[in-house]
Amino acid sequence: MVGRLVECVPNISEGRRREVIDAVVDAVRQTQGVRVLNVQSDESHNRTVITFVGEGEAVAQAALALVGKAVELIDLRQHQGEHPRLGAVDVIPFVPLGETTLEECVGLARRLGEQIWAALRVPVYLYAAAATAAHRVRLPDIRKGEFEGLAAKMLQDAWTPDIGDPRPHPSAGAVVVGARFPLIAYNINLRTTDVEIARAVARAVRGSSGGLANVQALGVMAASGLAQVTINILDASQTPMARIFDLVRVEAERYGVEVAESEVVGLVPLDAIVDVARAHLRMHGFDRGQILEVRLPE
Amino acid sequence: MVGRLVECVPNISEGRRREVIDAVVDAVRQTQGVRVLNVQSDESHNRTVITFVGEGEAVAQAALALVGKAVELIDLRQHQGEHPRLGAVDVIPFVPLGETTLEECVGLARRLGEQIWAALRVPVYLYAAAATAAHRVRLPDIRKGEFEGLAAKMLQDAWTPDIGDPRPHPSAGAVVVGARFPLIAYNINLRTTDVEIARAVARAVRGSSGGLANVQALGVMAASGLAQVTINILDASQTPMARIFDLVRVEAERYGVEVAESEVVGLVPLDAIVDVARAHLRMHGFDRGQILEVRLPE
Repeated sequence: MVGRLVECVPNISEGRRREVIDAVVDAVRQTQGVRVLNVQSDESHNRTVITFVGEGEAVAQAALALVGKAVELIDLRQHQGEHPRLGAVDVIPFVPLGETTLEECVGLARRLGEQIWAALRVPVYLYAAAATAAHRVRLPDIRKGEFEGLAAKMLQDAWTPDIGDPRPHPSAGAVVVGARFPLIAYNINLRTTDVEIARAVARAVRGSSGGLANVQALGVMAASGLAQVTINILDASQTPMARIFDLVRVEAERYGVEVAESEVVGLVPLDAIVDVARAHLRMHGFDRGQILEVRLPE
Repeated sequence: MVGRLVECVPNISEGRRREVIDAVVDAVRQTQGVRVLNVQSDESHNRTVITFVGEGEAVAQAALALVGKAVELIDLRQHQGEHPRLGAVDVIPFVPLGETTLEECVGLARRLGEQIWAALRVPVYLYAAAATAAHRVRLPDIRKGEFEGLAAKMLQDAWTPDIGDPRPHPSAGAVVVGARFPLIAYNINLRTTDVEIARAVARAVRGSSGGLANVQALGVMAASGLAQVTINILDASQTPMARIFDLVRVEAERYGVEVAESEVVGLVPLDAIVDVARAHLRMHGFDRGQILEVRLPE
């Protein structure tokens, strides 16, 4: 059954108003052929990550329904949150599972982008494997300047939207659509209220400023009142969670700060969790085939 | 499908002669209705752990076939190995999975014990949940004195076998049969050739000599030439792998010795692996429901 599945992980710019989140998630649930696996809201980020799966066309249809509902209910002119964002629906990645190819997901992303512009008049950027130029591959680059800087940014030749007019939707900004391999959204909370320390640690560990490949990181304030390093891991098979956690821990120690806790936002592949156990227990020969549940007859 | 399954994890006293191991495992494979999940041999222990599953009666029938073949091919009078053992088939635990109860597994153990004695004239001890007295619950107590001391031990009132005459089978000794919840067989190799250090660490960490509850441990020499702490974890939900590993690491450090690596023998429940990741990453709120493969539609 996993054979032909596509995962879709939209991030919407609402993490506080329960009725808005429910309405947006319901738009997905009411689409035939998709299944919602996870909904995770963060109040300080003021953002919700929704994970759903299904076959390609059903997933794209559910994503369009989600954008319609979010554009109706979320107004970025009123929005505040710790996490950078460009629009009411900030980003929609399509992720291949099982036998599905990344190329199929690129096709879904482009068709969804056309539909969003046609139906809702929200301009669209294509990113990651769906990007139309090298400088548009990385989400942080597209998102730089955020909703508030979007009208000016769109007038630059380098940042005209891929689909639609170079003018933000008044309340919904723009939406970034793309295709990528599975990513892990991962937050590490530090035992300090000083967000500058989280920012310094984020700079030290992320690839774009000299840190680890496959790691994007920002320093923000978490709802708990603790400074947080909020991370995207683009390929945990190359850059495992334990290495990232341990480097954050060491970099934070330079400021006399301990790691309080960490959390995965949304879902994480089993192999990433197995890798942490393998690292901690120095279990060099361990294979996921040794997990009882993996071996049980279906 | 997992609903009515029983897991059976016999340990046989042969870890070197491939043709003997294959013949014993084939006896299980040829039984209708069971599936072999894992076969793991250790040369220095001279022992193989076989894991198979199926519905209760099929599993018991396969276990009887396994004992028959092992008694035919393994002669304890010729056997040497690092791991303590009482017989050609040392121990046969039945483990409930899914909806199966421990009581059902106790019933299977007792019936298998009767069949082993009737068909093969190997005397049987019942242990763990199937034990007939408090002093027979723990496997290390039953096994104390090993095959070589068995004839004398059986003449003591406290150690007359539960089923069969109080005289060891000449080549196959005795077999211990029982029912228990899932157990993790776990070895930690130390960066030393001094087995006395492994023995001291084993004493420090095991419950019976003042260490951790749910932990049985011995110091032995591994095939790699490293001293090894070989461990059974009786309930990893109470005493997690990371705590055991970390305590072994700290106790070994008192001798200036590092942990080289560790290994799971046979299979391990997913929750035990998730707990290691949770501990290392300080991921206090993590739930296995956040693992993609756990959430995917079947």
